[in-house]
Amino acid sequence: MQFDLQHTDAKSRARAGTITTDHGQIQTPIFMPVGTAGTVKAVHQRELKEDIKAQIILGNTYHLYMRPGLDIIEQAGGLHKFNGWDKPILTDSGGYQVYSLADNRKIVEEGVHFQSHKDGSRHFFTPESIMDIQRTIGADIIMAFDECTPYPCEYDYAEKSMHMTNRWLDRCINRFDETEGKYGYSQTLFPIVQGSVYKDLRTQSAEYIASKEREGNAIGGLSVGEPAEDMYEMTDHVCGILPTDKPRYLMGVGTPANILECIALGVDMFDCVMPTRNARNGMLFTTQGIINIRNEKWKDDFTPIDPELGGYASTFYTKGYLRHLITSNEILGAQIASIQNLTFYLWLVGEARKQILNDNFASWKETMVKKVSQRL
Amino acid sequence: MQFDLQHTDAKSRARAGTITTDHGQIQTPIFMPVGTAGTVKAVHQRELKEDIKAQIILGNTYHLYMRPGLDIIEQAGGLHKFNGWDKPILTDSGGYQVYSLADNRKIVEEGVHFQSHKDGSRHFFTPESIMDIQRTIGADIIMAFDECTPYPCEYDYAEKSMHMTNRWLDRCINRFDETEGKYGYSQTLFPIVQGSVYKDLRTQSAEYIASKEREGNAIGGLSVGEPAEDMYEMTDHVCGILPTDKPRYLMGVGTPANILECIALGVDMFDCVMPTRNARNGMLFTTQGIINIRNEKWKDDFTPIDPELGGYASTFYTKGYLRHLITSNEILGAQIASIQNLTFYLWLVGEARKQILNDNFASWKETMVKKVSQRL
Ligand SMILES: [Zn+2]
Ligand SMILES: [Zn+2]
Repeated sequence: MQFDLQHTDAKSRARAGTITTDHGQIQTPIFMPVGTAGTVKAVHQRELKEDIKAQIILGNTYHLYMRPGLDIIEQAGGLHKFNGWDKPILTDSGGYQVYSLADNRKIVEEGVHFQSHKDGSRHFFTPESIMDIQRTIGADIIMAFDECTPYPCEYDYAEKSMHMTNRWLDRCINRFDETEGKYGYSQTLFPIVQGSVYKDLRTQSAEYIASKEREGNAIGGLSVGEPAEDMYEMTDHVCGILPTDKPRYLMGVGTPANILECIALGVDMFDCVMPTRNARNGMLFTTQGIINIRNEKWKDDFTPIDPELGGYASTFYTKGYLRHLITSNEILGAQIASIQNLTFYLWLVGEARKQILNDNFASWKETMVKKVSQRL
Repeated sequence: MQFDLQHTDAKSRARAGTITTDHGQIQTPIFMPVGTAGTVKAVHQRELKEDIKAQIILGNTYHLYMRPGLDIIEQAGGLHKFNGWDKPILTDSGGYQVYSLADNRKIVEEGVHFQSHKDGSRHFFTPESIMDIQRTIGADIIMAFDECTPYPCEYDYAEKSMHMTNRWLDRCINRFDETEGKYGYSQTLFPIVQGSVYKDLRTQSAEYIASKEREGNAIGGLSVGEPAEDMYEMTDHVCGILPTDKPRYLMGVGTPANILECIALGVDMFDCVMPTRNARNGMLFTTQGIINIRNEKWKDDFTPIDPELGGYASTFYTKGYLRHLITSNEILGAQIASIQNLTFYLWLVGEARKQILNDNFASWKETMVKKVSQRL
């Protein structure tokens, strides 16, 4: 993997860059649609590429490990071959799902014991096994196994956890560096900064992570329920410590406004289930603001969903028709809304990139945050 | 509406023709995907047109009347405008859903009282109101309000019901002929032959329906649980009575084999929820036979779903990937399987048409029925 930092905005820390992987290039800042179990829910692969213009998608290690399982993915020749997405993929470490979904989990120094939330089966993840699993899944960018602390989190717990995450990182790095990709292309490992909302812990963690000099770095443990101000403060602080010549990935963030604010702080990569999950519930992100399509007011609005955004789903279907589909629980409603929201997210980071390259990001962002946050 | 009968197969009664409506032409024999509530479930409109190559879709009057409701459809300018499907649409009369879905229904000479299966609201459908409703929905082809008798059905009940359906037909025709389309294009009314599995009742019904000299005729009350042999016998018998110069629509049929057999008997139009409903449950219709994709044997089959069929969904995705999606209840699984099945159904009737035009239908059908019926 290679990162070329092309430009930093004149009046913010927003950056435009290019990540090059064996599966192609990614123009940053970028948003990565979440493809949980090898599929971005309700979206065809060609729609991801041609309509949404996704450049990289995320896969969830926990879900893929459970279903279809590693043997199937390996027999297919890795996740790209399995699901037909031939552009870059990033996998998370599975930790977040273990902490949020699994049952009877027990975190020990060696790793995490837990039971599947689906069938109750017992499993044990370690930093080493998680490296092996992600080697087998075959993502281009793989994530270190960490503990993502919840919010709120006691200082003592956050401190101990952060140190354990650092020790786990060393074990991840050892395992990763002594193994090879299984499918003939290279993979890279991103470590994760933790430390909850405590600035001194974030400092220690970020400095430790930076010292590892990996090809990219991630900020975890945010967007877990803390106030947005805390998220921005921690992101700002950590971005000031992480090296400028490597991409920075803020995990699990967030709303369009969150993303714009964090781009301004120097973040290059984002992922979030919000555009797809909220789509299925009828919340639309548009160039004009946020629409709850279940609202009665849209029932006889036969204008296109988001003409300014362009593209098939946004211009072909009307708000009134989409409202009918969503309130009738029709699958096509989830399909249309998912394309709308993801197309919007990719458009938003693409516009941000243009503004950065024109040294106009900071002022554009101020206007844009207001526009995309308003409820229509 | 106009029907041009182009050719009748040399060794069967299979026919090739062209139906011309104000929304374009339909090459028969044709299969009509079911677009229940204004959407063919899990399929985008452009996929229907470009991938599946549907020429006409069906809408369910009962569902559309309930949701989004007639006021919304009328404000949109009719169903074509509402859902963006600008090719021909046929609507059923709502009767079948009233009999199969609604609660507390009571059939009287005047019409049918029932309660919504969704919210318990009370409604009363009459032949006249159903004509008005279908005028408002705006389908190109609308269906008479009939009683679809269940199977099995006592002779006496079937006889009384058939006569009532005939009286209702007269009321439908009166209302239809004294009203006009609301959106500037013409609509046509198809009467429906009933009579359960009783040949003499089918004769009386078909002769009565034929005497009305409408632009097309339908055969109802079949594919409701009777043995396939009964279905074929009744269809054969009724097709011998209905005029040859008008399209014949066999309602709610059926499997690929059913369709081929009934084409041989002189049927021109079909609809069935089977390709889409079964798709969502993981049953695939392919050019090689029937696949239950949930079966363990497909889990590591990384060949395309149906390469001979061609098209995006059938050639891009693998059986193993689709199995994973369906067994994981991923929406994309329903999307892919629905496109596969509908593309196959449209391919099947298209091939049948070619064989008819080449006077080769009868022998091709024998081979094809076996091929498409086998379980892989
Ligand atoms: Zn998120
Ligand atoms: Zn059917």
